[in-house]
Amino acid sequence: MTKHIILDTDPGIDDSLAILLALASPEIVLDGISTIHGNASTERVTTNALSILELAKASHVPVYKGCDLPLVQPSLLSPETHGDSGLGYAKLSAPLGQAQAQHGSDFLIDQIMSKPGEITLVAIGPLTNVAMAIRKEPRIVQNVKEVFIMGGAIRHQGNTTALAEYNTYVDPHAAHIVFHSGMPMILTPLDVTYQCIFTTDDLNRLLKINSPITKFIADATRFYMEFHDEYQKIDGCVINDPMTLALTFMPEICDYQDLYVDVDISTGVGLGNTFADFYNYEKKAPNMKLALGVRPRMFMELFLERMEKLAKANS
Amino acid sequence: MTKHIILDTDPGIDDSLAILLALASPEIVLDGISTIHGNASTERVTTNALSILELAKASHVPVYKGCDLPLVQPSLLSPETHGDSGLGYAKLSAPLGQAQAQHGSDFLIDQIMSKPGEITLVAIGPLTNVAMAIRKEPRIVQNVKEVFIMGGAIRHQGNTTALAEYNTYVDPHAAHIVFHSGMPMILTPLDVTYQCIFTTDDLNRLLKINSPITKFIADATRFYMEFHDEYQKIDGCVINDPMTLALTFMPEICDYQDLYVDVDISTGVGLGNTFADFYNYEKKAPNMKLALGVRPRMFMELFLERMEKLAKANS
Amino acid sequence: MTKHIILDTDPGIDDSLAILLALASPEIVLDGISTIHGNASTERVTTNALSILELAKASHVPVYKGCDLPLVQPSLLSPETHGDSGLGYAKLSAPLGQAQAQHGSDFLIDQIMSKPGEITLVAIGPLTNVAMAIRKEPRIVQNVKEVFIMGGAIRHQGNTTALAEYNTYVDPHAAHIVFHSGMPMILTPLDVTYQCIFTTDDLNRLLKINSPITKFIADATRFYMEFHDEYQKIDGCVINDPMTLALTFMPEICDYQDLYVDVDISTGVGLGNTFADFYNYEKKAPNMKLALGVRPRMFMELFLERMEKLAKANS
Amino acid sequence: MTKHIILDTDPGIDDSLAILLALASPEIVLDGISTIHGNASTERVTTNALSILELAKASHVPVYKGCDLPLVQPSLLSPETHGDSGLGYAKLSAPLGQAQAQHGSDFLIDQIMSKPGEITLVAIGPLTNVAMAIRKEPRIVQNVKEVFIMGGAIRHQGNTTALAEYNTYVDPHAAHIVFHSGMPMILTPLDVTYQCIFTTDDLNRLLKINSPITKFIADATRFYMEFHDEYQKIDGCVINDPMTLALTFMPEICDYQDLYVDVDISTGVGLGNTFADFYNYEKKAPNMKLALGVRPRMFMELFLERMEKLAKANS
Repeated sequence: MTKHIILDTDPGIDDSLAILLALASPEIVLDGISTIHGNASTERVTTNALSILELAKASHVPVYKGCDLPLVQPSLLSPETHGDSGLGYAKLSAPLGQAQAQHGSDFLIDQIMSKPGEITLVAIGPLTNVAMAIRKEPRIVQNVKEVFIMGGAIRHQGNTTALAEYNTYVDPHAAHIVFHSGMPMILTPLDVTYQCIFTTDDLNRLLKINSPITKFIADATRFYMEFHDEYQKIDGCVINDPMTLALTFMPEICDYQDLYVDVDISTGVGLGNTFADFYNYEKKAPNMKLALGVRPRMFMELFLERMEKLAKANS
Repeated sequence: MTKHIILDTDPGIDDSLAILLALASPEIVLDGISTIHGNASTERVTTNALSILELAKASHVPVYKGCDLPLVQPSLLSPETHGDSGLGYAKLSAPLGQAQAQHGSDFLIDQIMSKPGEITLVAIGPLTNVAMAIRKEPRIVQNVKEVFIMGGAIRHQGNTTALAEYNTYVDPHAAHIVFHSGMPMILTPLDVTYQCIFTTDDLNRLLKINSPITKFIADATRFYMEFHDEYQKIDGCVINDPMTLALTFMPEICDYQDLYVDVDISTGVGLGNTFADFYNYEKKAPNMKLALGVRPRMFMELFLERMEKLAKANS
Repeated sequence: MTKHIILDTDPGIDDSLAILLALASPEIVLDGISTIHGNASTERVTTNALSILELAKASHVPVYKGCDLPLVQPSLLSPETHGDSGLGYAKLSAPLGQAQAQHGSDFLIDQIMSKPGEITLVAIGPLTNVAMAIRKEPRIVQNVKEVFIMGGAIRHQGNTTALAEYNTYVDPHAAHIVFHSGMPMILTPLDVTYQCIFTTDDLNRLLKINSPITKFIADATRFYMEFHDEYQKIDGCVINDPMTLALTFMPEICDYQDLYVDVDISTGVGLGNTFADFYNYEKKAPNMKLALGVRPRMFMELFLERMEKLAKANS
Repeated sequence: MTKHIILDTDPGIDDSLAILLALASPEIVLDGISTIHGNASTERVTTNALSILELAKASHVPVYKGCDLPLVQPSLLSPETHGDSGLGYAKLSAPLGQAQAQHGSDFLIDQIMSKPGEITLVAIGPLTNVAMAIRKEPRIVQNVKEVFIMGGAIRHQGNTTALAEYNTYVDPHAAHIVFHSGMPMILTPLDVTYQCIFTTDDLNRLLKINSPITKFIADATRFYMEFHDEYQKIDGCVINDPMTLALTFMPEICDYQDLYVDVDISTGVGLGNTFADFYNYEKKAPNMKLALGVRPRMFMELFLERMEKLAKANS
């Protein structure tokens, strides 16, 4: 039985790979995309989402523009990680289509409320849209099937501050709302994504297929690899988002623990820090499944095969 | 020229008096009411708003139900101040009508965007709806005519913690969003409202008119007066909200200063504290007009006359 | 019966006036001075204390150098308020004597423990020395007679940030330790000191006496008056510290309330904010007497008379 | 060349093992012990220190009583980890000797200032004494040879809250002062100590020697093992403190990284959290050596051999 997926996303290099993986995976159907500020402005990432869908001949997937700004924190885009366009060195054609009129957070509400128990939400950007939807229509909490979130750094150092991962740091208050909402959540933190490196070898394997898809992946990830090399001394790049998407239909890529996870919204040095109460000091019930162990090559093989298939279909 | 008013409110004893004052004032027209959690649950205050409108034969004014919960903080209702029903000892009939389907925050957006520069928003409860509207449709900031807010305690002690006034304490993050939004704001803090006491003499003057209106005012405020006596040793009660409403058409009740005003969203003892940078240490431009001086009897005479008029029309 | 006073101070223009007032007041005897970072470096204020004592022919009063730095916060001196020397435009001779070998906080401990119930501590700078003494020898809490503190801004705006008074802002953690220590405390916040303005008229009255004392007062306060004019639009200057000292023997200058007073040590905008729980929300017992009402001219007449007397004795 | 060691400690089960290891190690000489609140009250841990020294026939080592309370936080003793006596099930005789008159923090200052560049400070409890010494005599920073600190949990979960290790949580402000002091520091966090488990096999090896020393170790650690089993599902017990002491003369037990390490002193959920800026986001110079890798059996063999030697000498 295929899963109905909504992607809440800020493409973004690895976000765009998650969109491509969703389109290439028969186990799921992508019902729509809501966009969110983050790797680039909402305007920009909405255009990117449309262009990527058109690149993959999937312009039937509707795109809904979401929030422009974090709830409380000032805007924090990340041109140094994803380039000014949000897609590294990739130059996609301007999209022919355009975003739907409805707001991204309202799209989430409408879909979840109209198909109770059927929608799998995959949120791979800052959580502003999701938090807004929860506060506007609290009943989505009981009606969403499950929410996969890319975010947080539990034991791992942050990728934005010493303690905080980018998505949670950009809108920690939204993450706080979502984490404490009672939704059935599966969190994919840096602890697992930073073990899955997309290497030059992986890229070269894809480049054996001559296709706009593989060219896009190469142009986008080349920028990302330069960033990882310069800032984090990593050879290759970490593709957090497609891995999170993959868990929706291939959960065995990771091992999980049911844990109480919280995010720091203080005004101190820990802002945006996510942490799990492993020893249960707080005596609180687990609020999510936390992916901690990972089989990196299981994911990477899946990803490469799917991209090869998609590239061949678009060569 | 009459002003078009939307009331964002959580009735609530003094909120209900603001609704009545709006209905009794020819200088303004009440285009609608959006409701918000606060003095009682959103469910409850929505019912109250409908009942009060019907009591005053104003069931044509549409009511839109807003958010149930603060953005980040846990819910904090105030039955000890406003009674379990939110209206003290008053027992109003269950309303015949019901709330509109649209969400309160969407109503704010629609009205403001469809009548650029014409809508005066009067927000006399926690600011969750207003903050949600700003984040969903940032252009309301440029398109609202003005926003009157009842909230904050600048030099005055708080009425909920030592430092914080109720509306800002209940949703400090929403207040933070609104205060920093760039909207043209006029803030009415406890510093001025606590100088306007509705006394037993005032009540007795109203009670000379036999009307469901005056009976309602008496039953509602009796509870409120008991609260003020017990907790704050005040003889009478402070009716913050109608005073804020009155400023929309009789601004001379107060004196104002253009100031930079902020709200504390730390996790410390100051949560929800509102303060003005009188000496401009922060070198920031003023973000609102702050009502500091007040002519209490000017307001009270207005209020009493209007209530008398309304009572006579409904006797 | 004369009171035995220890002054913990960072002279500092108004601190130096407090030293002079102590020397000029037969009701008290100044047993010693401990110095503290603040208006200028500890090195500098120690020199200043010695010079002022010598100016007033009181070199028998021993001076003990205290802490150089706040407990946790970075150093914050105030050359813009007190000049680089800490004494405005006054140029005092380098002192002939020098500070004692013992550390200022140990001097506090020794004096209080050796004369149980007899020592009145007057702390008119940041509270680092006092906090250090409490943590090293907790029994001083029971053995000090009373502690007069110049610090805090309760309802009044701050003089360093919008919310915080200088002494508490410079070392809020020390203030937190002292406020929660259980010592018998009397706090003189800006709420009262800012009502006592030392004016040009007051200065001219003193200048009728030709003395190194009046010349010093004129040179020191001229700088201070310029600061108050520029930053706070006050004509004259606020002399917080001698007023605090005066309360030790003329308490009727102020009215007091027993209250629970706390200081904000969060990492947010409220850092160093002092506040009183007037409505007793916290259900905590009062921890100090708070001076709220004041008779400004009662203090100012006292101060002027004593300075005249001292000047005549040193003319 | 033997190192001159001062132990700042709150014995405490593993603290007592550190004292024994110091006495059993010819590479170092234990010049004195300063005691600190923590695992039990300062009164109690001072008695414990004296008793342990007498147990090991080392009553010539002077003991100095230090601070009773954390700087700012309320007292937090840990009877659930170390028992009411601080030494688990061990019952030592009341000591014949007593603590020196000088305060623990003054002892640190005197020793460091009188032997510039010679004293190795090993701080294995909350850092209150060390912080007090730094603020009273800042020159100890340049004059101490090195400071070994047991504290913090960098990537590892906390042992007191989800984020914080016990010593830093008990007095985070003291840790903040010390970490930012400029002293040459080596930090041993839970990341390495939790890899060194003292097992029942280890204990049984020691118990082959019949001695008051081995009996003490057995009685003390039995309680500790029960705690680790109940709360953290660890079979055996973690002996943080002797490992820290061992690094003074056998540094090769660990691998180190020069890093900027900070501690959270906000009022939020992260209070007491210690973290390293691995990617150097803050652009700050390293402030300490951080032990991250560890050779557990290298330490454990050392510990067991030394305890065997000490036990034989005291059998």
